[in-house]
Amino acid sequence: MAYKIKAYRRKVNYYETDKMGITHHSNYFRWFEEARIHFMSQTAYPYKRVEKLGIVMPMIAASAEYKHPTFFDDEVIIKSWLTFFNGYKTTLQFEVINAETNQLCVTGETKTAVLNAAGTPIRLQREFPEMYEDWLSVLGLVPED
Amino acid sequence: MAYKIKAYRRKVNYYETDKMGITHHSNYFRWFEEARIHFMSQTAYPYKRVEKLGIVMPMIAASAEYKHPTFFDDEVIIKSWLTFFNGYKTTLQFEVINAETNQLCVTGETKTAVLNAAGTPIRLQREFPEMYEDWLSVLGLVPED
Amino acid sequence: MAYKIKAYRRKVNYYETDKMGITHHSNYFRWFEEARIHFMSQTAYPYKRVEKLGIVMPMIAASAEYKHPTFFDDEVIIKSWLTFFNGYKTTLQFEVINAETNQLCVTGETKTAVLNAAGTPIRLQREFPEMYEDWLSVLGLVPED
Amino acid sequence: MAYKIKAYRRKVNYYETDKMGITHHSNYFRWFEEARIHFMSQTAYPYKRVEKLGIVMPMIAASAEYKHPTFFDDEVIIKSWLTFFNGYKTTLQFEVINAETNQLCVTGETKTAVLNAAGTPIRLQREFPEMYEDWLSVLGLVPED
Repeated sequence: MAYKIKAYRRKVNYYETDKMGITHHSNYFRWFEEARIHFMSQTAYPYKRVEKLGIVMPMIAASAEYKHPTFFDDEVIIKSWLTFFNGYKTTLQFEVINAETNQLCVTGETKTAVLNAAGTPIRLQREFPEMYEDWLSVLGLVPED
Repeated sequence: MAYKIKAYRRKVNYYETDKMGITHHSNYFRWFEEARIHFMSQTAYPYKRVEKLGIVMPMIAASAEYKHPTFFDDEVIIKSWLTFFNGYKTTLQFEVINAETNQLCVTGETKTAVLNAAGTPIRLQREFPEMYEDWLSVLGLVPED
Repeated sequence: MAYKIKAYRRKVNYYETDKMGITHHSNYFRWFEEARIHFMSQTAYPYKRVEKLGIVMPMIAASAEYKHPTFFDDEVIIKSWLTFFNGYKTTLQFEVINAETNQLCVTGETKTAVLNAAGTPIRLQREFPEMYEDWLSVLGLVPED
Repeated sequence: MAYKIKAYRRKVNYYETDKMGITHHSNYFRWFEEARIHFMSQTAYPYKRVEKLGIVMPMIAASAEYKHPTFFDDEVIIKSWLTFFNGYKTTLQFEVINAETNQLCVTGETKTAVLNAAGTPIRLQREFPEMYEDWLSVLGLVPED
């Protein structure tokens, strides 16, 4: 299947700011998750479906670089794309862009495992070959604005 | 058992403030939960034990009145006490007090159900009579500072 | 001005769930805030503009009643409307509705003050009569889905 | 001054878990902040004092590696120490350890700038030489449990 992936958009919520007047840095990791789930919702395997199949994808590593702050009510575009996938581990990269100024504010990366309900790593290519193929088909696909 | 319950203490975290420079109002409901769990940890039935017995206590209603703001790094005392308990519903009340000034900042109330894992209400007096007695013994007991 | 207000829509984020598998009750107060800001963004006085005029609206009281849980990825409609406004205090009511089942999940109410930057109550009718009239014009206006 | 720094301890809150039943990964960045502020509170320059001097320390980069999950009510020890400091940038490292099992659960690193209120980088050695010396004195100092 040839996907066209749309980037994720949202606004900065008031409760996501801190007393410095900017978005608290921890929230970007939550936005990365929102963007990743939005990304997956555009494939044949939205995260809810993945979980129903008995698969969870716990975080192994996460990082962010903060270039410019975002502020209450800013609209941000969050691009997420899969940069690595071998059937039992994923890497995604993220860009948070101010939708009005087009400024790149934050970049990030997350690595997850692919586990079954018992917490054992699974190899998608063997156990869920269709999901494996579907994810391969979006590998490297950068979303449009 | 005659309990002496200690109030819960914590500091306001930086990430709990918002751009107004004060603790975001939603966080007090999280602190009420911390205080409730701290309260229960001083009885024979800490919440973790309760959950292991297959019981959950989802929220039915929650409210707060905000009298004075709290600020980053303020130490607060949170008193919580059980004001109603009939075996399948609980009501707790809360006071958030600035530990330095003794000022009463926020008051609150939460009501929870008592359900089994399947989401069905249970009557503790029949199914867990010892827990029922234990909770009755703390009914109305206001914690010390 | 005769407004037509649209209700606010959003999805339940993964990080908003807790180990019970449902949306943590504290998050509804954050959603109420999102809905209130979305509501105001449809009037002549979005909250960002209000703050630029030197006005803040800190919470005086907030409450919620939880009728049915919401779950990860559920789409919810949040209706918010102004039920009381006298120039220096506001009351809003909220309904959180599951967009798929139309089930009313949570209701709520928030009361805010209207203060200047120094924390002193202000009377909008005297100091910002146009804002006062604008808000009066949406008093009682229930948003559409 | 020869400091002896104590590690930070706290419990995993219920609202910090997600539907996987474990602490949501974003919360560790909040705990790192708590630990950093606890660390600074043991020096002559607690963060509140630093902010009163007109200095803020916004995040430049943050990362975490997740080795083992933590669960509701787990007591965790969070060690934080300063690994780099040149007067206008800081790097801290973090370890989150399960206090009962002594298992290392999460490691992390944060980099912050040192800015004045206007958002301009400042060189502490020139503008706040005593603070600069104080921070140098804790460089590399690993906290005790």
